Amino acid sequence: MGNGLYFGIDVGGTAVKMSLYSSKEDSMVENCSIPSIKNEDENILIGNIVRKMKEMSAEAGVSISEVSGIGIGIPGPVTADGKVLKCANLGWDIVDLTTIIKELTGVENVEAGNDANVAALGEIWKGAAAGYKDAVMVTLGTGVGGGIVIDGHIRAGHRGAAGEIGHITVEPEESEACGCGCRGCLEQYASATGIVDIAKKRFGICKENLTAKDIFDAAKAGDEKALKTVDIFAAYLGTALSNIANVIAPEIFIIGGGVSAAGNIIIEKVMEYYEKNSMYALRDIPARLAKLGNMAGMYGAIKMVIGR
Amino acid sequence: MGNGLYFGIDVGGTAVKMSLYSSKEDSMVENCSIPSIKNEDENILIGNIVRKMKEMSAEAGVSISEVSGIGIGIPGPVTADGKVLKCANLGWDIVDLTTIIKELTGVENVEAGNDANVAALGEIWKGAAAGYKDAVMVTLGTGVGGGIVIDGHIRAGHRGAAGEIGHITVEPEESEACGCGCRGCLEQYASATGIVDIAKKRFGICKENLTAKDIFDAAKAGDEKALKTVDIFAAYLGTALSNIANVIAPEIFIIGGGVSAAGNIIIEKVMEYYEKNSMYALRDIPARLAKLGNMAGMYGAIKMVIGR
Repeated sequence: MGNGLYFGIDVGGTAVKMSLYSSKEDSMVENCSIPSIKNEDENILIGNIVRKMKEMSAEAGVSISEVSGIGIGIPGPVTADGKVLKCANLGWDIVDLTTIIKELTGVENVEAGNDANVAALGEIWKGAAAGYKDAVMVTLGTGVGGGIVIDGHIRAGHRGAAGEIGHITVEPEESEACGCGCRGCLEQYASATGIVDIAKKRFGICKENLTAKDIFDAAKAGDEKALKTVDIFAAYLGTALSNIANVIAPEIFIIGGGVSAAGNIIIEKVMEYYEKNSMYALRDIPARLAKLGNMAGMYGAIKMVIGR
Repeated sequence: MGNGLYFGIDVGGTAVKMSLYSSKEDSMVENCSIPSIKNEDENILIGNIVRKMKEMSAEAGVSISEVSGIGIGIPGPVTADGKVLKCANLGWDIVDLTTIIKELTGVENVEAGNDANVAALGEIWKGAAAGYKDAVMVTLGTGVGGGIVIDGHIRAGHRGAAGEIGHITVEPEESEACGCGCRGCLEQYASATGIVDIAKKRFGICKENLTAKDIFDAAKAGDEKALKTVDIFAAYLGTALSNIANVIAPEIFIIGGGVSAAGNIIIEKVMEYYEKNSMYALRDIPARLAKLGNMAGMYGAIKMVIGR
């Protein structure tokens, strides 16, 4: 337990968000952010993170080595033992991140995880799924990400690739390829760009700089084409959630990311299709909007190393 | 640890298979089977099972209460804490099976699980996935069942419904309903009857009493329609496995059940579509044919309670 101070670090493509959490006060005692630059040698970014942790620890009156734990979320695949595997978002190759951080800080309790998985853990600890032990979190942004927590633990899986929900096949007839090279992935219909694509290609909505938000706003105002677009989005996402339930039957679904700012219309429409497509025993699994926003990653990173 | 004697019990719709395993000898010391009758009061069947366990223990020279553990597989949903939820195959309502068995035997170490999940655990312990910690097992029989083991433990999930792989939606355009009420479930194409349906409906193969075995035999002999039928079966199952991998990224897939007697043609064809449809990081997850056959359930039941 030590002094009950934990670092939660959320490494993103442009910034690294860092929080120092006190378990005694049950709150973040310091928050800060440093830039991250893509394709830099990983040792430069890791060195900057460690330097900042040392500063933040000093301000809290402790040496970095006295900190009780360090949790880190990474925008790429991370194995269960904390190895980062070729993180395209950072331009990293394979990096044994937890070992490096342990060596540089003298802290033994260090964990790393994929950022979407870590965010799901954050929502379980302090957010929309507080009190649950399992959750599947879907993040609807530029892409579609997924985080899986089973029995209170992040599921990393083979090559750290568990939770790649955006690449579940939902449309076997699709002719266009997804970024992953396959066809008919959920991401092609449920990401911000996917929703805009549906509106443009299937319903000829052709406003300049059309966004997913515009479509949800129009749907809320009763626009027919926008409603049909939302229906198609919801059918694909609802079916995907139902397929996920058939595999691991989680206690709850959480929907987050920029697109989820559209609010309850997302939950209502998606769960309509979810229920229609689910077996009786799975039909009552609830879904909620994510609560923690950008803080989910830091909370989840801390949760990885707290109370172990 | 005690005397190292464990009961593994596999409750089926027509028979209950029971084995007594000795961890000291690492082998089954007794096997037997008693009939199970559907829609009987559950207490009758449970009473018969306990009576038989007492007999078998006595033959092994111990009293039932001295046995080190009892594991039970049930052909229906079972929660993580061993409650059987409305088992249609036995005509049971909700039965707190582990508590009842504990009371009737005096044995504390009792676990129950869904038979497909338990079989997957058996294959991990002594079968096709020996040495692995995770596995997803698909059982291709009259229906399509699924078993999920994560980090060495059965995943029961919400209402014991994890691993309902047969009800993953793989064909959104399907017009006919599956037994579960939804449309386009994997079971409609990958079960023994589903494969025959593909051959009849899409390729007009109309031999009397056509079986899945006939179709695989014809495919092996080069028959074009049979090969096309197998291709469609394999595309649906391969896509479903790929979707499962996107969720939990298991270490290995196991394919069992009566249909899998067709042999390696199943693995080859299914994995061809699996790889085509999978993200790079997931493409090398292997698949193997199940090894233990009818013994998987008993081995898995024992594994639930051994070494805990």
